Amino acid sequence: MPKGYAGKKLEVDLTTQSIEKKPLEADLIKNFIGGTGFAIKILYDNLKPGIDPFSPENIVVFAAGPAQGTLVPGSGRCITVSKSPLTGSTFRSCFGGFFGPELKYAGCDLIVIRGRSEKPVFLYVNDGDVQLRSAQQLWGSSTYTTQDTLRDEIDDKKLQVACIGPAGENLVRFSSIVHDIHVGGRGGLGAVMGSKKLKAIAVRGTKEVEVADDDGIRELWKEVSRKVKESVTTRNLSVFGTTFMVASINKVGGLGTRNWQEEFFEGWEKITGETTVPKYKIKDLACHSCPIGCVKVQKIREGKHRGVWSKGPEYETLYSLGSLLGVDDFGAIVAAARACDELGLDTISTGVNVAFAMECSERGILRQEETNGLDLRFGNGEALIECIRNIANREGWLGRTLAEGVKRASEVIGLGSQYLAMHVKGLELAGHSPRAIKGWGLGYSVANRGGSHHDARVHSLDYGKPVEERAFTIEGKPEGVASTQESAVIGDSLIVCRLFESIYGLSVGQEHCRVLRLTTGRDVEVPELVRAAERIYNLERCFAVREGFTRRDDALPMRIMFESIPEGPSKGAQTKPRELKTMLDRFYAIRGWDLESGKPTQEKLNELGLDYAARDIWGE
Amino acid sequence: MPKGYAGKKLEVDLTTQSIEKKPLEADLIKNFIGGTGFAIKILYDNLKPGIDPFSPENIVVFAAGPAQGTLVPGSGRCITVSKSPLTGSTFRSCFGGFFGPELKYAGCDLIVIRGRSEKPVFLYVNDGDVQLRSAQQLWGSSTYTTQDTLRDEIDDKKLQVACIGPAGENLVRFSSIVHDIHVGGRGGLGAVMGSKKLKAIAVRGTKEVEVADDDGIRELWKEVSRKVKESVTTRNLSVFGTTFMVASINKVGGLGTRNWQEEFFEGWEKITGETTVPKYKIKDLACHSCPIGCVKVQKIREGKHRGVWSKGPEYETLYSLGSLLGVDDFGAIVAAARACDELGLDTISTGVNVAFAMECSERGILRQEETNGLDLRFGNGEALIECIRNIANREGWLGRTLAEGVKRASEVIGLGSQYLAMHVKGLELAGHSPRAIKGWGLGYSVANRGGSHHDARVHSLDYGKPVEERAFTIEGKPEGVASTQESAVIGDSLIVCRLFESIYGLSVGQEHCRVLRLTTGRDVEVPELVRAAERIYNLERCFAVREGFTRRDDALPMRIMFESIPEGPSKGAQTKPRELKTMLDRFYAIRGWDLESGKPTQEKLNELGLDYAARDIWGE
Repeated sequence: MPKGYAGKKLEVDLTTQSIEKKPLEADLIKNFIGGTGFAIKILYDNLKPGIDPFSPENIVVFAAGPAQGTLVPGSGRCITVSKSPLTGSTFRSCFGGFFGPELKYAGCDLIVIRGRSEKPVFLYVNDGDVQLRSAQQLWGSSTYTTQDTLRDEIDDKKLQVACIGPAGENLVRFSSIVHDIHVGGRGGLGAVMGSKKLKAIAVRGTKEVEVADDDGIRELWKEVSRKVKESVTTRNLSVFGTTFMVASINKVGGLGTRNWQEEFFEGWEKITGETTVPKYKIKDLACHSCPIGCVKVQKIREGKHRGVWSKGPEYETLYSLGSLLGVDDFGAIVAAARACDELGLDTISTGVNVAFAMECSERGILRQEETNGLDLRFGNGEALIECIRNIANREGWLGRTLAEGVKRASEVIGLGSQYLAMHVKGLELAGHSPRAIKGWGLGYSVANRGGSHHDARVHSLDYGKPVEERAFTIEGKPEGVASTQESAVIGDSLIVCRLFESIYGLSVGQEHCRVLRLTTGRDVEVPELVRAAERIYNLERCFAVREGFTRRDDALPMRIMFESIPEGPSKGAQTKPRELKTMLDRFYAIRGWDLESGKPTQEKLNELGLDYAARDIWGE
Repeated sequence: MPKGYAGKKLEVDLTTQSIEKKPLEADLIKNFIGGTGFAIKILYDNLKPGIDPFSPENIVVFAAGPAQGTLVPGSGRCITVSKSPLTGSTFRSCFGGFFGPELKYAGCDLIVIRGRSEKPVFLYVNDGDVQLRSAQQLWGSSTYTTQDTLRDEIDDKKLQVACIGPAGENLVRFSSIVHDIHVGGRGGLGAVMGSKKLKAIAVRGTKEVEVADDDGIRELWKEVSRKVKESVTTRNLSVFGTTFMVASINKVGGLGTRNWQEEFFEGWEKITGETTVPKYKIKDLACHSCPIGCVKVQKIREGKHRGVWSKGPEYETLYSLGSLLGVDDFGAIVAAARACDELGLDTISTGVNVAFAMECSERGILRQEETNGLDLRFGNGEALIECIRNIANREGWLGRTLAEGVKRASEVIGLGSQYLAMHVKGLELAGHSPRAIKGWGLGYSVANRGGSHHDARVHSLDYGKPVEERAFTIEGKPEGVASTQESAVIGDSLIVCRLFESIYGLSVGQEHCRVLRLTTGRDVEVPELVRAAERIYNLERCFAVREGFTRRDDALPMRIMFESIPEGPSKGAQTKPRELKTMLDRFYAIRGWDLESGKPTQEKLNELGLDYAARDIWGE
């Protein structure tokens, strides 16, 4: 067994209810590192182009990397990958906690699930013993109840569960997968599980993960722990989690407000972590092997939502359920976030959908009788909470329509509402401004996942820079996007948490090599790891190309391209089509992609050992 | 044989090269009047939903009505109908001259053409003798050369020809059908003929059309001729043709300028008829039985385009090839119009496509290397002329892309250019402002043809009104749209020319009944004729519904809904989604259509005797 890996994958077919345990292929280990790399390769090889994400043919992969189950700092992660019902291409969603490590303890690097069960089931992995069991009793339960029930039934407090809520069962296209209070939110992978009638995966393992250099990892732990204390960013993360970013992002005038009509939220102070954490925090939590401990549980002490607690809410949720909706009632945001987590909805996509509906309402595109009677004005936090329930349960015309995601909803609603639908490739925009941080204009547009903040990571490069540099020049942005995409891909393959990126590096570097070496013993140099990143990223792009995506899909919402930020510190910033086009050309050149089609060139693919993909997308 | 009709239809199958002559069905005559009514019913009955407009299954109908070949004023018209390659639904395009009357002289009310010839052919109808002949020698010829050649070859100066140019042969989706110098421009029916390898139809007839009341028609002629001289509008049409409308429409601030970014054109005076006609007119022409004689031929006397003449250009062309492109060089407009007519391109759609490309260029969405090297700035008349040739010949990437129409082009070009594509249901916007004349906002949106000015005719009601009434209120607009649609449908079924609408009436009335009575002897009252109009209009709507159109397709370009007119006499006017929605609801209620889907209700369809259509769109 190769060091750093469990060396096994589980293959589960829900149609036949069969389970197979297979050795991990040497090619996967050598060329695709782990986690995301493994999963993308498996999706590429196994999914015929054009299949419906909700069909039994689709597969869901849960994958760990060489860091899981070790002391490598930030290794409490797991990745899930599937063909997304929102975007129609591959989607990788990462979540924290203990699930990834536990998978390794149970002797698996990977679980690959296909088919569709007739009745609700859950997968129970107990070291070598793997079973499909009935989840009939759990169907309809919230994500928290599901986990509690499984731990009770199996009578194992250390059982690690990843599950879906009612939203996933109801095939809401932006349903999440929830583990503990951590969320694999984006891309609707919860709905793919729902379509397979797979309510949960419960894992328990007792094996140790053998690593190449135990002492080296201990050394790394000490070093990273020290750096975490030294850096302002990671120190802030330790104290506030991601919640403090509301203030800092609003300060640069890049906080999406009222469906991105504005990017400065007058109510920022009421919802940012500096205000709320001292007042409402009841608990700090950390994932496996984490010297940061970013998870803050906050509980409301007064008013209508007194007694409601929620994880975070994270920055992205404070954006999507707060500023984006003009909601500054922190109690309502916490209650809404909690509802999303329990119902199994991605908070970002949910917020963008509600913001869309609110703007449609204010513009008379939707009338109150079409919004299930809700008064969808910006700022109405109580309507938000109702709307979340409508969506998760597909209740009423509004619930059914928004459950399809903002792209499809706008196509159904028409009346020009497409202009108000803030998405890229069908994925609702995350909380980093593609105008105030112009690199994001490019980053979102080329992301294989669409409007995700986990492809490129340019904000980490740009937030501190003067406005001229971050918002009014395209210089250097394509390079920043390309290199951060690569470190993100390697980070998600090893897997180490994104919040450590200031420590491990925003481009693929020595520290990434070090993690791979310490865990696997593989003595890899930076260029080889960069090539691995490119290989994974390009294979993911080839999947999209095979599905019909072209250069024209690398675009931004029209509002971003045709309206500038009206007020605030980034006033006048806009990512015009002209600028995006120039950035795309440069980015494609850096990537070795064809300028006209946006397809990776044959030369580039051959260079990366992806000859089969070259044949697929260019023909013989 | 019923009076007012020839009583026969020709059925031509180009695949089998067979020709059949059949009697006109009594049901058609009774329920569908003639012209448009006949053609819509035939299309509905004969086309299966979902067929490709360029497939042999599609049919093209040429139809006359009871007025053709008589002295009824304004009866020099013919209607062509087919499934449009631009919109994907039925399209009716009307043209003037002598073709419609000649069809009747040759003993036909209708020609129905299906199939696809292997080699280019033309249809020669010489009274009772009907043949398909080779058009190999004509393939590639301009529309004017084609007509001259056919008249020479057949050696008959009175031969009436309707034909296509190179654009139609090249399947440019907005290709026209040209007869003499008259044009059946819109909807791309020329491309449908091209797809069938049908270059032309040449007709010669010697039979008289028997009418019910010869004296009565003579009386009508006198009366209408007198009214033409009395009315300012028709007097202006006699002197200037439609060219004077540039000044009057610009005066109300509703002249589409630079791709509808503005609606006031500073160069209006250089291109309006009051300026050009006195200087450049070389000939007045009238269609059959026309006391107006609106066709002005103008010839450039100086500069680069010295010696070039063109019919008109009509108002719509002065808009689309002039103000809409910021071109105030009248010589360039005449040369561009002439090029369109000879190549067989609809000037309106051509102009809107070029305006789109110009705005894309100015915004950096298209670069000069993507525009066949053309410098597509607004105002560049010479680039316009080159661009027209590129489109007609599908030359270069730009030519090929724009040849698909602005909707498809914007989808290919992406980068938010959909926002700049000024079309409704795929048909490029005509030159009547949907903001300055708010009724047009509704009129275009619900038109079965999309952005056509020949469905509703609300400008005729509204241009004279104060700005508050025409641009800033929705009151009365749905009623105006509904009633003018009906008079337009009846006008196009009888067929009488649209320019007489101020005389025959902007709602179905006594004068329409009179025309039908005088020609056919049928003593019809207004309510019955209104019902016939509704029957035809609703059947056309059912065709669209069957093709998948719903309420959401009754929309406007985003710019019209989200931007107001920035300057000029209609400054601030906008047709907001809220307003459109309210007008749609009211309009559907008037029409007896389902509010949610926009489908005609079963009750309405049954009331109109369209039970079969009710079954088709609602099921049993």
